[in-house]
Amino acid sequence: MGRVTQARRIETVRIRDGRLFHGRKGDHLAVEEPLDIRLNGQPHSVTMRTPGHDVELIHGLLHSEGRIRTREDIAEARYCDGAVIEDASGHARNTYNVMDFTTRRPQLLPVLPRSSVTTSACGVCGAASIDDVRQQGRYALARDWTITPQAILTAGRAFDAEQTVFRRTGGIHGAALVTPSGEILVQREDVGRHNAVDKVIGWALLQDLLPLSGHLLLVSSRASFEIVQKAYLAGIPLLACVSAASSLAVETAESVGMTLAGFVRGGEDGDGRMNLYTHPERIDLSAAQ
Amino acid sequence: MGRVTQARRIETVRIRDGRLFHGRKGDHLAVEEPLDIRLNGQPHSVTMRTPGHDVELIHGLLHSEGRIRTREDIAEARYCDGAVIEDASGHARNTYNVMDFTTRRPQLLPVLPRSSVTTSACGVCGAASIDDVRQQGRYALARDWTITPQAILTAGRAFDAEQTVFRRTGGIHGAALVTPSGEILVQREDVGRHNAVDKVIGWALLQDLLPLSGHLLLVSSRASFEIVQKAYLAGIPLLACVSAASSLAVETAESVGMTLAGFVRGGEDGDGRMNLYTHPERIDLSAAQ
Repeated sequence: MGRVTQARRIETVRIRDGRLFHGRKGDHLAVEEPLDIRLNGQPHSVTMRTPGHDVELIHGLLHSEGRIRTREDIAEARYCDGAVIEDASGHARNTYNVMDFTTRRPQLLPVLPRSSVTTSACGVCGAASIDDVRQQGRYALARDWTITPQAILTAGRAFDAEQTVFRRTGGIHGAALVTPSGEILVQREDVGRHNAVDKVIGWALLQDLLPLSGHLLLVSSRASFEIVQKAYLAGIPLLACVSAASSLAVETAESVGMTLAGFVRGGEDGDGRMNLYTHPERIDLSAAQ
Repeated sequence: MGRVTQARRIETVRIRDGRLFHGRKGDHLAVEEPLDIRLNGQPHSVTMRTPGHDVELIHGLLHSEGRIRTREDIAEARYCDGAVIEDASGHARNTYNVMDFTTRRPQLLPVLPRSSVTTSACGVCGAASIDDVRQQGRYALARDWTITPQAILTAGRAFDAEQTVFRRTGGIHGAALVTPSGEILVQREDVGRHNAVDKVIGWALLQDLLPLSGHLLLVSSRASFEIVQKAYLAGIPLLACVSAASSLAVETAESVGMTLAGFVRGGEDGDGRMNLYTHPERIDLSAAQ
């Protein structure tokens, strides 16, 4: 199994007060490796990901594509035995970069290539993309719970503390499922934003926790259309991101009834802030002054 | 044509010294809209992008995929006339989200779907991905020029000053081509990291500037395998990124002979720093103390 970080000797350059300094040091890189996904014996896609939690990642990905709904839809998931390369000493070793997934009911799978899923209308636009997402959705988002801003910031602090690979490499994204009291249920990291989200949703699917109507999704990155889509299809009523939200992420969240919070930033002292883009009714502001 | 930023009223939450404050303000979002790309009348892909410079984006994308080499390979590029939606007042308007590209020699195009390009070997791994890139490459990277760290940091400061959408929204990526003296030749922004790079390389292709053997590529984001791949196929000898580099980005750059600099950070006072991951021989360190 591949490692999550890789040590490397690098050179450093620094300019201070107009003077140039040159040095060497040890550094850690976030590992990126291809994952070749096969579905029912056919090539499905290749995604660049950080190795680890591959089974969760693929479950989450297939769920986001609407190809599976529960873990029972997958009959078998295994690393391909034939995926071997020769290592430096001439020994064959499995790359653990090829996974075969077999579904229980092959007829459920759409046969369209993924790239044309949203191209049927010539008038493709943001509104059409949102309509596609609404049609795919199976879960109405829960309207009956609220969360305090303090709980979101508490989760954000725990999230930062847990994001071990980021702290080592500075180059990885994180995603976590959080309870209304601010407790982190599961947290995953990946070089790909989407992969980190697929890993946590795939984990929940494997735990039979869908729909995730009592949880929020916290991501270290920005919120794009696709992140909102993945959260919505898993029934998550609140998406909180550390960075910005795109126009289409906001429009999609508005349309499907999801609360979207951005620029969630908190300090160790309990202070912090966030922007609320859509459906602020799930944020308990009763203590506001 | 879509706009690049969108104004929106949002709510703000702030906690200071344990007290909760709630407000409202105007904000700007980076626009994300689907772009439906058709190639020779067939659906090619849908990419989420920030509108603007779509012709450059698609030229850059097709070049990175190895489907075109020069601007002469494209016979026609146009927005689809039929891509209309009704606006709020009932008038039909073009979405400018569907583009038709026609190549001069259709037989040059690979017929394999993109997702299976790198899946021919069962032993897919980082090394196989690098081999694929090397085989696609047409240009040996220039070994005969150097650049000072000061010039890279100068470009970085100009890049920050120009990244107008980022400053407004905090949610967008940038890419730029830079001369060895630190001058920015072209700079583009997009919600997608890859799109920003495709836009600048597509611009250069349309200007007949490939191979970009005398330029460096500066990106606001991290360096992943795909960014290194795009730069290599355009003949760019140096990639500088503001954030981290992944393991496979570093391994690929090492293998193809590209200089890779990361964490390029400079201040207004001329101070700054960067990490050199591969081929530091292009960085002029003769003034180092």
